[in-house]
Amino acid sequence: VEQPVVALDAMGGDHAPAATVEGALRAHDEHGVRVTLVGRPDAIEPELARLGRAGALPVVPAPDVVGMDEDAALALRSKPRASVRVAADLVATGDAAALLSAGSTGATLAAALFAFGRLEGVRRPAVAAAIPVSDGRRLVLVDAGATPDAEPELLVGHARMGLAYAQALGVTSPTAGLLNIGAEPGKGNALARDASESLTAALGPAFAGNVEPAAALDGAVDVLVADGFTGNIFLKTVEALRPVRDVHTGAALLLGVRGCALVAHGAAAPAELAAALRTAAQVSAEDVTGRVAAALAAGAAA
Amino acid sequence: VEQPVVALDAMGGDHAPAATVEGALRAHDEHGVRVTLVGRPDAIEPELARLGRAGALPVVPAPDVVGMDEDAALALRSKPRASVRVAADLVATGDAAALLSAGSTGATLAAALFAFGRLEGVRRPAVAAAIPVSDGRRLVLVDAGATPDAEPELLVGHARMGLAYAQALGVTSPTAGLLNIGAEPGKGNALARDASESLTAALGPAFAGNVEPAAALDGAVDVLVADGFTGNIFLKTVEALRPVRDVHTGAALLLGVRGCALVAHGAAAPAELAAALRTAAQVSAEDVTGRVAAALAAGAAA
Repeated sequence: VEQPVVALDAMGGDHAPAATVEGALRAHDEHGVRVTLVGRPDAIEPELARLGRAGALPVVPAPDVVGMDEDAALALRSKPRASVRVAADLVATGDAAALLSAGSTGATLAAALFAFGRLEGVRRPAVAAAIPVSDGRRLVLVDAGATPDAEPELLVGHARMGLAYAQALGVTSPTAGLLNIGAEPGKGNALARDASESLTAALGPAFAGNVEPAAALDGAVDVLVADGFTGNIFLKTVEALRPVRDVHTGAALLLGVRGCALVAHGAAAPAELAAALRTAAQVSAEDVTGRVAAALAAGAAA
Repeated sequence: VEQPVVALDAMGGDHAPAATVEGALRAHDEHGVRVTLVGRPDAIEPELARLGRAGALPVVPAPDVVGMDEDAALALRSKPRASVRVAADLVATGDAAALLSAGSTGATLAAALFAFGRLEGVRRPAVAAAIPVSDGRRLVLVDAGATPDAEPELLVGHARMGLAYAQALGVTSPTAGLLNIGAEPGKGNALARDASESLTAALGPAFAGNVEPAAALDGAVDVLVADGFTGNIFLKTVEALRPVRDVHTGAALLLGVRGCALVAHGAAAPAELAAALRTAAQVSAEDVTGRVAAALAAGAAA
């Protein structure tokens, strides 16, 4: 079976393009991942040359870059030739199987929406991080940072997508919990209290109630639902205290779009980017995105 | 110098009174902490007897208990003889120097407000956790869980109290950062974005801007400001991943009330409760509460 191609936004991330180019070469050399570098050739090619590997990886030119502090939707609209958007287009046209960016999550999400569109029934895509917990199991955190301001119904959507993702990862009857400051009903801030009621009404027994951080990291549930702000604080705190390789596979998956797109850390070093590229290749080879779409369409989570 | 007396809410916590009585005996025997047990004698005395220590510690009777799922303010009003309220009264009358409870934080806060009142200029008290970071330094997290729903101005109050607490802990010119999902200005949810502006306007150079979890745990600032929901999620995630003794001193301090009150974990085991009692004794012996009040009155943080 031929390896899928990952379109890497070579201009995305705090240390791009030096870190992205080196990470791509490592993923290629050490794991056999096929990577297409997308971005400014005058920035990428000197990095390949610096590492003694001129011409080693294909480069698809894209003249523009979306900065970390730009408004994502606005930037994507005004820069159709931005690297993250060109990389997403490569997936849409079938020239690549997955998109990976260590740049702005908002811009990656916007590019994926432009290029792929969203799955039916999905109000808003989310970022899902699969955090290893115990016995080889993984905790699917949704939303890990796509939408910092959320309403209760959005969290119901996150839960449905997370449950579908857990099924795609092989869990037969996954359960979802709401990340909260206490396990008792009625705990939390206004959003958590309302979301807990909405989740109970929408998911029935698949909703396991409120879950505190320790229980979530002990594997009490398969899916951890949170607004994008709280979820991102939780993920970043876990990442700050655990060795990087134990935290997740270097990349988080966008859920709710009709294509395979993943985000890596802005601060990722080449080794982490190589791991993220390997994850992107695996996720697309296993058609996780297609399986999530199928599980959502089957209403398995509802 | 005579040791201060800590009034322990013996009925508070998931494993009370077994864990509280055993923790009190350990604090007494191993660290010389003077503890008064407050609660139902018919529940406390059998525990002392079970441990072969009948009569070893003074017991102040209080017939009522506030449950973890009760409305705190309501319960405190309808149960003037609840253990946490009687313990707070002992501090107000000078019969104890500090209150410690492993029961509901809301009830402890309400009891402290009833018994001590609040400091001038404080809109709402907060819970402060002093998290060890590096080189013996501590990160003061405010709010660690008192008020889950907050507005920007409340976070300014948290920051002022946290800076005063850091000064009381010996930091000469403390800085405060806002717990956020990115360091760049404009990052976060609506509350974080607005609070960042309010903090900049109110605190000037004492406000160091947005801080991500990793930077906060690296000691980038002395005070970490958060709403009570996010702060509690952060604290509980840190506690889930670090050995308990490395996290903090077993107890978090109430800031903004005119008296010394601390809260311990509901799930705390006897060893943790003993550490918390020792912390309570130290905090009252060092008059941390008085020094916070003085720093706030001097407007040092503003």
